[in-house]
Amino acid sequence: MELLRKIVLESNTKKGKTFDLVIQLLIVLSIINFTLSTIKGKSESYYNFLNTFEKVTVIIFTVEYLLRVVLEKKKLKFIISYFGLIDLIAIIPFYLSTGVDLRSLRALRLLRVFKFFRYSKTLYRISKAIKIAKQELILFFSLTCILLYLAAVGIYYFENQAQPEVFKSIFDSLWWAVATLTTVGYGDLYPITIGGRIFTFFILMIGLGIVSIPAGIIASAVSKAREEE
Amino acid sequence: MELLRKIVLESNTKKGKTFDLVIQLLIVLSIINFTLSTIKGKSESYYNFLNTFEKVTVIIFTVEYLLRVVLEKKKLKFIISYFGLIDLIAIIPFYLSTGVDLRSLRALRLLRVFKFFRYSKTLYRISKAIKIAKQELILFFSLTCILLYLAAVGIYYFENQAQPEVFKSIFDSLWWAVATLTTVGYGDLYPITIGGRIFTFFILMIGLGIVSIPAGIIASAVSKAREEE
Amino acid sequence: MELLRKIVLESNTKKGKTFDLVIQLLIVLSIINFTLSTIKGKSESYYNFLNTFEKVTVIIFTVEYLLRVVLEKKKLKFIISYFGLIDLIAIIPFYLSTGVDLRSLRALRLLRVFKFFRYSKTLYRISKAIKIAKQELILFFSLTCILLYLAAVGIYYFENQAQPEVFKSIFDSLWWAVATLTTVGYGDLYPITIGGRIFTFFILMIGLGIVSIPAGIIASAVSKAREEE
Amino acid sequence: MELLRKIVLESNTKKGKTFDLVIQLLIVLSIINFTLSTIKGKSESYYNFLNTFEKVTVIIFTVEYLLRVVLEKKKLKFIISYFGLIDLIAIIPFYLSTGVDLRSLRALRLLRVFKFFRYSKTLYRISKAIKIAKQELILFFSLTCILLYLAAVGIYYFENQAQPEVFKSIFDSLWWAVATLTTVGYGDLYPITIGGRIFTFFILMIGLGIVSIPAGIIASAVSKAREEE
Repeated sequence: MELLRKIVLESNTKKGKTFDLVIQLLIVLSIINFTLSTIKGKSESYYNFLNTFEKVTVIIFTVEYLLRVVLEKKKLKFIISYFGLIDLIAIIPFYLSTGVDLRSLRALRLLRVFKFFRYSKTLYRISKAIKIAKQELILFFSLTCILLYLAAVGIYYFENQAQPEVFKSIFDSLWWAVATLTTVGYGDLYPITIGGRIFTFFILMIGLGIVSIPAGIIASAVSKAREEE
Repeated sequence: MELLRKIVLESNTKKGKTFDLVIQLLIVLSIINFTLSTIKGKSESYYNFLNTFEKVTVIIFTVEYLLRVVLEKKKLKFIISYFGLIDLIAIIPFYLSTGVDLRSLRALRLLRVFKFFRYSKTLYRISKAIKIAKQELILFFSLTCILLYLAAVGIYYFENQAQPEVFKSIFDSLWWAVATLTTVGYGDLYPITIGGRIFTFFILMIGLGIVSIPAGIIASAVSKAREEE
Repeated sequence: MELLRKIVLESNTKKGKTFDLVIQLLIVLSIINFTLSTIKGKSESYYNFLNTFEKVTVIIFTVEYLLRVVLEKKKLKFIISYFGLIDLIAIIPFYLSTGVDLRSLRALRLLRVFKFFRYSKTLYRISKAIKIAKQELILFFSLTCILLYLAAVGIYYFENQAQPEVFKSIFDSLWWAVATLTTVGYGDLYPITIGGRIFTFFILMIGLGIVSIPAGIIASAVSKAREEE
Repeated sequence: MELLRKIVLESNTKKGKTFDLVIQLLIVLSIINFTLSTIKGKSESYYNFLNTFEKVTVIIFTVEYLLRVVLEKKKLKFIISYFGLIDLIAIIPFYLSTGVDLRSLRALRLLRVFKFFRYSKTLYRISKAIKIAKQELILFFSLTCILLYLAAVGIYYFENQAQPEVFKSIFDSLWWAVATLTTVGYGDLYPITIGGRIFTFFILMIGLGIVSIPAGIIASAVSKAREEE
C-alpha cells in the first residue's frame, strides 16, 4: 500500500517518475488516437482498432483515477483540485457517451507535464515574471482591443463601398484587423483602395509595437527574475 | 450636490468607481450596438431595436455630459479638455444627423478606461519608456519610411514587366512593401521573377530588424523604468 | 560669400537649418513626382505637369550641387564623399537621359535627413549597438542562410512529387523558405503533404528564433548603450 | 608533410585559412550546382556541364577527405567525429549512386564555417545563452505544442461543419494552428464562422506571447553573457 502510494502519487522517486512517464505516454497516445479518429473515409477495421484502443486507455485512466482517490489521504481535496477535475473530465465523457465529444479535453491532462517542472525554478520564474508585468499586460491588452476596434471601423469606411461583399460589416472588418495586426495576414480580406492602404500602413506602424511589446516585457522580466536568484 | 459631484467626477471613491464602470459598460454596449447596426439584410424589428437602444444610450450620455459640465468647477477647462471634447463628439453626431456617420468615434471614449490606470505606476512607466526611446523611435520610423520607398522602387523595376497588372505603379509596389516588411503578407501581390525574389530576401533581412527593433527598445525601456522604481 | 556658406553648408545655424529643410522638402516632392509619373493611363496634361516639375527640381538640385562644390573648401573631398556622390547621382541621370531610369536613386538623398541626428547621441548609440552585436549578427545571418537552404531542400523532397508545378525546383523551394521563415507567408507556395507540414513545423520552431533573435540583440545593445551614457 | 598538415588541418595560420576558404567556396559552388540541376526542361548541354562540374568537385572533396584522414594523427577520432562523418556523407552518395539523392546533405558541410568562429567569443556566448535559457526553452516548447493541439481541436469544432472540405480532420486543423500561431498565415485554411474567428482572436492573444517569448529570452541571455565578460 505504502509502495503503491509512492509509485502513483509521488513524482520525485524513481518509481514515481516512471509511473508518471507511462501515464504521460498513454495520454499522448490516446490524444493521437482521438486525432486519427477524426479522419473520415477510412476502412471499418481502422475505426474498430481505434475504438478498441480508446476503450483500453479509458479503462487504464479509470483505474489510475480510482487509485489516486483511494491512495490520497485528503481525498476530497484531490477530487476538487485542478488535476483531480481534469482527470475526471478525461474519463467521464466515455461513460456518459454524451452528444458533444469532450474527449479532446483530455489534452488538458498534458498539463500534468508541468509537474516535472514543479520543483525547478523555471516555472516559478515565469509566474513571477507574469506577476511583475501583470499591469502592463492588462494595459496593452486593453490598448490592443481598442486599437482593433478603431482599425476595424476605419477600414470599414474606406473599403465597404469598394468591396461591399468582402468588408460586409464591422464584424468582418474586426476579423481583418485581428489577422492584420497580429501579422498573420491570411489574405481573405485586404484593402484595395488607396485610402484603405494608407490607413493600414499607419495602423500597422502603431499597432505592431502595441501587439509585440508584451512578449518583450515578459522576456525581460524572466531574465530579470533569473538574475535576481 | 456635493454627493453628485463625488459620484460623477471622482473615480477613487467607491461610488465614483461604480458610476465610471456603468458608463464604461454603456459605452461598450453602444459600440456593440453600432457594430450590429452595420450588418445588412436583417429583419426590420432588428434595426428598430438597435435604433431604440441607440436613442436611449445617447440620452444617457447627454445627461452625463451635462452633469459633468454643471458639476465641474472649471467648466471651460473641462469642455476644451481631451475627455470633454471626446464626450461631446460622442453625442453631437446623433443630434446633427450628418451625412457622415461619426458614431464610431464613440470608441475613443473607451480611452476613459485609462483613468483606472491614472494613479498606478504602469501608465507613467510606459510614457516614461516612450520618452526615453523617443529619439530612437523617430529614427527607426524615418528609416522604415525610406526603406519602404526603396523596396517599392526596387520591386517595381523587377516585377513591373513580368506582372504589369499587379505591380502597376510605385503606389502598388509601396503597398507590397508595407505588407511584406511588416510580415503581414496578404498574398495579393508577390514577386515571381528570380531577381524580384532575391531582392525581397535582402530587403527582408535588412527590414525585419528595422521594423521590429522599436518594440524591443520600448520593452527594454519599460523594464528599465520598472527597475529604477 | 561667407553668409552663403553658412546657409548652404552648415546645418546648426537657423538659416542653415531652414535651407536644409527646404531641400529635404524638394527631395520629398521630387520623389512623389517620380512616383506619380509611374502611374499609367492618365491624361497628357498630367504627364506634362509632372515633367515640368521634374525639370524645375533638377535645375534647383543642380544649382545646389554647384553651390556646394564652389563653397566647400575641400572640394575634391566633398565630391568623392558619400553625400557628394549621392547628390551627383540624383541629378546626372536627367542630363544623360540614359535608357535605365535612375531617378529613383534620388531617394537615397533622403538619408541626408540623418544630418539632423548627427549631433545627437541617438545615431551614435545605434551604430555602437550594431558594432557591439556585429559578430552575433554575422553568425545569425550565416545560420539563417544555411537554414533557408536546408529548409528549401527538405520541402523540395517532400512536396516536389505532390506539387510538381508549385515546388518546381530548389529555387522555388528557397523562395518558399524565405517567405515562411520570415513569417510573411504570401500563400503562393505552401506544403500539402503530411510530411511537408510536419517538416515545416520543426523548421519554424527552430527558425523563428534564429530569424528574430538579431533584432532582440540589437534592441538590448541599444538599451545597454543608453544606460552607459 | 608538416607543411601540408598546417595547410589542411589548421585554420589559424594564413595558409590554413586560405585552404579553408577555397574549400568553403567549392562547397558553396557545388551546392549551387546541385540546386541548378533540380531545374527541369533545360538543354542537354546544361545538364552535361553541371554533371561534369559535379564530378570535379566530388573528386576534390575526396582528395581533401583522404588528406585529412592521412594527416590527422588521431585518425579514428576524426573519422567518427561530427565533421569527419559530414565530410564522408558529402562524397559517398556520389560513389554509391543510390536511388535517394543525398547530395543535398552536402549543405551540412557549410557548418564548417563555424570553425571561423571557434576561437571567437561569439559562439561561446550563444551556446552559453542557450544553456542558461534551456529550461525556459523546453517549457515554452511544451506549452507551444499543447497550445497548438488545443487550438487545433477548438477550430475543428468551430469550422468542421461550415467548411468540411477545408478543416477535414484535426490534422488539417493542426496545420492551420501552426501557420496561424507562427503568424505565417498562408491563407490556405482560415476560419469563416463567427465562433471560429473569436476563438482565433483569443488563441492569438495567448499564443503570440508563448511563441515569441523564447527568442526574447535568448536575446536577453546573449546580452547578459556579453556584459559578464
